[in-house]
Amino acid sequence: MTKRIPISEIFGPTVQGEGPLIGRPAIFVRTGGCDYRCAWCDTLYAVLPEHSSEWVPMTASEILARIDELTAGHPILVTLSGGNPALWPLEPLIARGRAQGHRFALETQGSVAAPWFASLDWLILSPKPPSSGMPMNWDALDACLSAAGNRSRSALKIVVFDNADYEHAKLVSKRYAGLPIYLQVGNPSPLIPNNAEISDAADINHLLDRLRWLIERVTDDHWFDATVLPQLHVLTWGNRRGV
Amino acid sequence: MTKRIPISEIFGPTVQGEGPLIGRPAIFVRTGGCDYRCAWCDTLYAVLPEHSSEWVPMTASEILARIDELTAGHPILVTLSGGNPALWPLEPLIARGRAQGHRFALETQGSVAAPWFASLDWLILSPKPPSSGMPMNWDALDACLSAAGNRSRSALKIVVFDNADYEHAKLVSKRYAGLPIYLQVGNPSPLIPNNAEISDAADINHLLDRLRWLIERVTDDHWFDATVLPQLHVLTWGNRRGV
Repeated sequence: MTKRIPISEIFGPTVQGEGPLIGRPAIFVRTGGCDYRCAWCDTLYAVLPEHSSEWVPMTASEILARIDELTAGHPILVTLSGGNPALWPLEPLIARGRAQGHRFALETQGSVAAPWFASLDWLILSPKPPSSGMPMNWDALDACLSAAGNRSRSALKIVVFDNADYEHAKLVSKRYAGLPIYLQVGNPSPLIPNNAEISDAADINHLLDRLRWLIERVTDDHWFDATVLPQLHVLTWGNRRGV
Repeated sequence: MTKRIPISEIFGPTVQGEGPLIGRPAIFVRTGGCDYRCAWCDTLYAVLPEHSSEWVPMTASEILARIDELTAGHPILVTLSGGNPALWPLEPLIARGRAQGHRFALETQGSVAAPWFASLDWLILSPKPPSSGMPMNWDALDACLSAAGNRSRSALKIVVFDNADYEHAKLVSKRYAGLPIYLQVGNPSPLIPNNAEISDAADINHLLDRLRWLIERVTDDHWFDATVLPQLHVLTWGNRRGV
């Protein structure tokens, strides 16, 4: 219970901008550290070891106290994100938070499974597409889903920048038929400064253009089980942190 | 089975832009005729009797044939909208469409209940807020929900333009505690030409501004059960018909 988790940031309440919980008020708890280095990562400050001095080691109690402070004690959806939050022992946080009425969603690429996935309300798996430059680990993804146990609480979320990503998403959906799949329009803005700095200004017109492309791709393909969504928070606030 | 329904338009596949099914590929079937006259109605061409000559009387078979033509025979989510689609005997369409693998969502203000609500996959009730100029009929809304039977398939969607609408939404949510509630940012663009003609150009910046306002209102209020969403199709395509 006194284990400490490296926390990059805790912010909110705001609304979840992505995936099956889009539009839901949430607090975001972002852990530091990641086993991946995606080409278009938009949270390098929670990934790269050179940022680790900014991460605050916190116990479950301290994290919950901060959540309660932000919500004035009202129960809320807590999104655990990263980095890769699956790297850390989050079970005490989830168990104690749920006992207080909070609900927990975990966002992870699915490269590392943990037994406590079964205690989540939502497991949102984002296997990385070819444009990320990361390899696909099917065995790890299988392990994540079996750790979660009840598939009704699991969903797939795939970022799509281009045709290769789209084909990858179809492959994933074939393997996990029956799991809800969310296709998310890739946000290229963080690419502009060569991954060194994140630009605040998201190009909304470009994002909407890519959203139209992706909707057309899916409907032309008669892929009517997929759900197509933009990142609502990027449309709303640009690439700003803390919203 | 040979009863004819006045159809204002059938279009798609596109994605659902609103509410609990946001982002899902769908065909829209819009019936003509409405018992309401909302101040900011964005589909007057499916509401006012002077447009009734544009509505095509179609049987369930004809509607299904058109859906199959648009989807090349692939099962899809069919959104029944209006006008107020609850005014028409849609049971044969739903029964036969479901047997073909389609799924059906009905969007209605909840002023008229029908026994066939129980055969829907989704009942999405949009009781109109004060800014609509329409009265609130609680008994009718109760009747709609009991006609649907299984509340897990029902959801509330409330358009919010201002504080009065917001307070109304809170009242509705109190009466139907446990039902999912979606707050939707009001789209003022159709107001500009005095409701006579719908402008194509949605003011995206204004809509995003109102979205930020609504998110802040909900989070300041600790109303963490509500889901806040914009109209995705308006952001994507403006106020155009047929998308």
